[in-house]
Amino acid sequence: MTADGGSARFEARLGEIAALTESLLDRLFGPGPVEGERARAPRLLDAVRYATLGGGKRFRPFLVVESAALFAVPQEQSLMAAAALECVHCYSLVHDDLPAMDNDDLRRGRPTVHKAFGEATAILAGDSLLTFAFDILARPETHPDPAIRIALVLGLARAAGLGGMAGGQMLDLEAEGRFAAAPPKMDLPDIEQLQAMKTGALLRYGCVAGAILGRADESARKALDRFGAIIGEAFQIADDILDVEGDVATVGKATGKDAHARKATVVGILGVAKAKQKLFGLIGEAERTLAPFGPDAALLKAAARFVAERRA
Amino acid sequence: MTADGGSARFEARLGEIAALTESLLDRLFGPGPVEGERARAPRLLDAVRYATLGGGKRFRPFLVVESAALFAVPQEQSLMAAAALECVHCYSLVHDDLPAMDNDDLRRGRPTVHKAFGEATAILAGDSLLTFAFDILARPETHPDPAIRIALVLGLARAAGLGGMAGGQMLDLEAEGRFAAAPPKMDLPDIEQLQAMKTGALLRYGCVAGAILGRADESARKALDRFGAIIGEAFQIADDILDVEGDVATVGKATGKDAHARKATVVGILGVAKAKQKLFGLIGEAERTLAPFGPDAALLKAAARFVAERRA
Repeated sequence: MTADGGSARFEARLGEIAALTESLLDRLFGPGPVEGERARAPRLLDAVRYATLGGGKRFRPFLVVESAALFAVPQEQSLMAAAALECVHCYSLVHDDLPAMDNDDLRRGRPTVHKAFGEATAILAGDSLLTFAFDILARPETHPDPAIRIALVLGLARAAGLGGMAGGQMLDLEAEGRFAAAPPKMDLPDIEQLQAMKTGALLRYGCVAGAILGRADESARKALDRFGAIIGEAFQIADDILDVEGDVATVGKATGKDAHARKATVVGILGVAKAKQKLFGLIGEAERTLAPFGPDAALLKAAARFVAERRA
Repeated sequence: MTADGGSARFEARLGEIAALTESLLDRLFGPGPVEGERARAPRLLDAVRYATLGGGKRFRPFLVVESAALFAVPQEQSLMAAAALECVHCYSLVHDDLPAMDNDDLRRGRPTVHKAFGEATAILAGDSLLTFAFDILARPETHPDPAIRIALVLGLARAAGLGGMAGGQMLDLEAEGRFAAAPPKMDLPDIEQLQAMKTGALLRYGCVAGAILGRADESARKALDRFGAIIGEAFQIADDILDVEGDVATVGKATGKDAHARKATVVGILGVAKAKQKLFGLIGEAERTLAPFGPDAALLKAAARFVAERRA
């Protein structure tokens, strides 16, 4: 398979999984109520649907579904786990965009949830999405074996919480000097740790979720865990480069924010040229990590290149 | 047992479970990291500890532990589920207190989390607590059987989410007329539905969690579910009465808020006297619902009276 062929196949598959994720989320966020619910508040449901439907590359769902496919997991199952992860990702965007956090007005080229619905509704929509992710994972449709479902729950909670994404967002706000007179001095390991938590943890979970669903053996699981970590690191460096080089129209959100916030980034420390070099080194490592899976992992390898080369 | 004897025994047991819950939460919110976490951001951990430790009657943990005790569930297990539920309760307080929501400065007589740590940290602390609840439930210490743990996860997600507590808070904000020129007309069933979601769902879950842990049969589970629903309704009416009759020093938070917000309440529609009558009717129903459990349910019955008679 040529690199170009891989990229075209990758984009087709990414689009396919995005469409399937979208239609699953649309079904899950129906008018309800389902068993154990009293009623679904219409205004909250509208905000939740606005936050999750009609956009997004669904890259995390792609990672779940394609990692799971290595172990021949039925796609109906991996899509459920994918939808749960996407809910957590969307919740994090809604809360991170809030005025008290990153104060963003635009997301995917549309008004952010708090701009469209107000802050209170945005807070509750984020809370509901986070909660709903665990609802999805707990359903028998996600996997018939409760032991698998509870492993997915534990992994997601660890990836998203205090010692994962939420903790990373806290460190990120501190890195902007929010709670001190000036931003703290941060070296490369500090920044990498912050990013491994803020961005990396969920991407990594996406790959590990596939291994959990597929009852992967220790070495396969470790390889996917490592692959996810690399993807996470590459993703953040690419994001920082976009922040420096991109423009609002292409990226669909504000750019130049890191410099404005005087925030330490890998790109800020290494410079764009060396950061790009590091990025492509990571892609090579990602491909080597997936080598044991042979040609089955071609789409995941293409995903690593996509992360490094994305322009939006 | 006399009513007085029951009340003294209840208060002792409530205090005992509160102390055990506090010490478990203190352990769970240690410096970490645990497996699957990278590091625990110290500022976020401080805010999470502030939000959960050093206060609170721990009434929800009491409901879990005492409901589970009906089925001889080991207390180490029921305390884990209790701690998870308390995390969700505390998260809801932190987010509900935010300026964009109820804008409260005081909680349990102390500055609210956003007053003490700022809004961004409060949002993240709430998010982390909600996430952590599912982390706790997913651990083998909560119950050795994954099927039991996943049932606890699903029940909590439904109780806390879109069709439960978060949905109820949305309806409550709408009831204040936040998103319209005037508060909407609400009749008694509307208000009861709102309250069943906002306050009732978690209390009800507390009782059902005991039944899940204890592998209760259908009829015992239904009785506890109904008991929880009654407790929830009584709790809210008592809260509304306190809002009318209480003072800030005793209640530990602002009072007179419902009238100020022109919010429809059961007390507003029925008047205080009839609301109190309804409240005591509910207590009678709660006791009848628990009759099948005989004297084992004495403390839960005392809890129902506690809810009706509380002054803070």
